[in-house]
Amino acid sequence: MICVIHSHPYPGRSRVNRAFADALRALPNLDLRSIYALYPDFDIDVAAEQKALANAQLIVWLHPLYWYSVPALFKHWCDKVLEFGWAYGDGAHALRGKSCLWAPTAGGSEATYAAHGLHRRPFASFVAPLEQTARFCGMRWEAPHVVFEADDLDAAQLSRCVTEFVQRLTSWRAPAEEAGEISP
Amino acid sequence: MICVIHSHPYPGRSRVNRAFADALRALPNLDLRSIYALYPDFDIDVAAEQKALANAQLIVWLHPLYWYSVPALFKHWCDKVLEFGWAYGDGAHALRGKSCLWAPTAGGSEATYAAHGLHRRPFASFVAPLEQTARFCGMRWEAPHVVFEADDLDAAQLSRCVTEFVQRLTSWRAPAEEAGEISP
Repeated sequence: MICVIHSHPYPGRSRVNRAFADALRALPNLDLRSIYALYPDFDIDVAAEQKALANAQLIVWLHPLYWYSVPALFKHWCDKVLEFGWAYGDGAHALRGKSCLWAPTAGGSEATYAAHGLHRRPFASFVAPLEQTARFCGMRWEAPHVVFEADDLDAAQLSRCVTEFVQRLTSWRAPAEEAGEISP
Repeated sequence: MICVIHSHPYPGRSRVNRAFADALRALPNLDLRSIYALYPDFDIDVAAEQKALANAQLIVWLHPLYWYSVPALFKHWCDKVLEFGWAYGDGAHALRGKSCLWAPTAGGSEATYAAHGLHRRPFASFVAPLEQTARFCGMRWEAPHVVFEADDLDAAQLSRCVTEFVQRLTSWRAPAEEAGEISP
């Protein structure tokens, strides 16, 4: 089972995230959770979210990049759902051994993420908080699936992007358990 | 004028943030905005926040570290208040030339932020999203004021921390304008 946490605060303005979500909705063995639709008042059902994560082997974080990071409700999701005593802490390892795939969409081109570009740093500079959040919960960190120039894709490019993303998820296989890694 | 955006989702559990806020409340020419008290339902008054920022020369972001980043309501504050057409975008430079001081408190020691430590990376690895947010709005980035081991400070250590932080803010002076930097 794949669990996709889809966070877009303005779905009416979304192109790539919306197209991704529409394509994923049709897939079997995939739980698409559009949290801005589920929790418009920021009142997250922590138990329901934890149950969805517990059922999944691959957890996908899909959202547009907001200020080099995640939209606010997804941060709230992290703060509430990845809680002490469940996701981390002594004896707490609900997410251990699962895989985590970060799939942000960025308005700028990859070239704008460079020392002399608009965003002054390589994109990789902004990955650490997300990656370490996943790793702290014992998850495997997959290579992020970043879509650049998300605001400027034409219809053909968007269609190709959707195909690539769907392909990435449907071809995903849980890695073989590594010796000792799953033991408490 | 100094504007402090203070974000703690659980003020009843706060020690360092609360002590900092209590000390700052008494200072002249300082606007302390405790946003979890102001906006418990996440319904931020964007105009009020922008007005407070416009009046300040130094903007301080004070909060505990949550998942290597900011608490959710402060992320919401960034997403809503630092808006296109006001904080950035053609002709929008409401924050340009102001200074920004990030003041996070972290539960772990500085030594836990290392390749072989609990958090696997130096603390500096987690600064980029915040720093680049400030810089993208044209703000000067001050060296962050990080308090480590915030959960374990004894009363004397806490008192010294408060004094150091107050001293840092009260001794702050706006840098002389650099040639060309303030021009539109």
